[in-house]
Amino acid sequence: MSDDILQRLMAVLVSRKDADPDSSYVAGLYHKGLDSILKKIGEESAETIIAAKSGDKQQIVHETADLWFHCLVMLAQQNLDARLVLEELERRFGVSGVDEKAAREQSK
Amino acid sequence: MSDDILQRLMAVLVSRKDADPDSSYVAGLYHKGLDSILKKIGEESAETIIAAKSGDKQQIVHETADLWFHCLVMLAQQNLDARLVLEELERRFGVSGVDEKAAREQSK
Amino acid sequence: MSDDILQRLMAVLVSRKDADPDSSYVAGLYHKGLDSILKKIGEESAETIIAAKSGDKQQIVHETADLWFHCLVMLAQQNLDARLVLEELERRFGVSGVDEKAAREQSK
Amino acid sequence: MSDDILQRLMAVLVSRKDADPDSSYVAGLYHKGLDSILKKIGEESAETIIAAKSGDKQQIVHETADLWFHCLVMLAQQNLDARLVLEELERRFGVSGVDEKAAREQSK
Repeated sequence: MSDDILQRLMAVLVSRKDADPDSSYVAGLYHKGLDSILKKIGEESAETIIAAKSGDKQQIVHETADLWFHCLVMLAQQNLDARLVLEELERRFGVSGVDEKAAREQSK
Repeated sequence: MSDDILQRLMAVLVSRKDADPDSSYVAGLYHKGLDSILKKIGEESAETIIAAKSGDKQQIVHETADLWFHCLVMLAQQNLDARLVLEELERRFGVSGVDEKAAREQSK
Repeated sequence: MSDDILQRLMAVLVSRKDADPDSSYVAGLYHKGLDSILKKIGEESAETIIAAKSGDKQQIVHETADLWFHCLVMLAQQNLDARLVLEELERRFGVSGVDEKAAREQSK
Repeated sequence: MSDDILQRLMAVLVSRKDADPDSSYVAGLYHKGLDSILKKIGEESAETIIAAKSGDKQQIVHETADLWFHCLVMLAQQNLDARLVLEELERRFGVSGVDEKAAREQSK
């Protein structure tokens, strides 16, 4: 049910690329340009690290969401689809066949 | 189709939490502990920024995948599910109802 | 002439530790606490990387200064002196004896 | 006494710019290029943040030294002198006149 959130979010982000800079936070970020988006990725990754070291579970989820969100904005700005990242994850970490079956066996 | 990759990858990552440290890269990371996982998040976010500044599309996808992957390992190590992050994204950025419809209209 | 800037800056930073949070930027940072200082270190390191990739010399100097400045604030907040970092640099990278002489020979 | 460490270290770093890549760690870094140096800045800033959150004083000094060291390598690679960063710190944070005097009064 929540599985295609990244795809839906990506569609929203792409749709805002031509929006008035004042119309939303994301439209403002696109207008400021790539460097501003990348600064946010640096900032949110530091905040994710800090939250994890603090051991605050809610904050970890919050900051990781912020980090992934700004990665999606960067991908949209670069005309790249989040699907490419997911496919890369699938390819490189072999989440299929043997591994997936092993994971399923173990979680029974 | 590729939508549930994060969920499947998460299941694999969780299944490796009790594995022999020498059995895989991820099992080794768990064994080294949280700080080692967080260092990778810091490293991969810098590499994502560098790739984006270089304008190398393939490298951007590669590094973003690495960054998300190590976030998933951190979540698993902290007994948190990636689904929580996706739900947080859905909640906070309102990817449903009006926004989603707007995105769909625009992409027609 | 400019050689002892770090020491003098450190003295100023330490002197502001008990100041009214509203009296200066640094006093405000101390009041917000360690996490706020560390977020700035994360942010400024990303900005240093971005400036270097942009090849903007003035911006590189500007952002590196920001990064070192927030490191000094962190050291002061942790009751550590910048001198310890300088001595560590001296010890580990052997900037004395043979190496220093080699450097001087070469720059003649 | 330890005040001119950055200047001496800078001289050593500059002297190694034309050295054989296999002759030292720094010579190897120059050879790999700017991206490799910037990755180290990202990595060491994350490690500085992690050390500070762990409250390990010795580790904080160690990682801050690593971070500054790789900033110096980046400056050398970009033909910039550490003195420019120190002067920027002096200019922007006004470590002279009134502020310096205030710091000295307080430390008596």
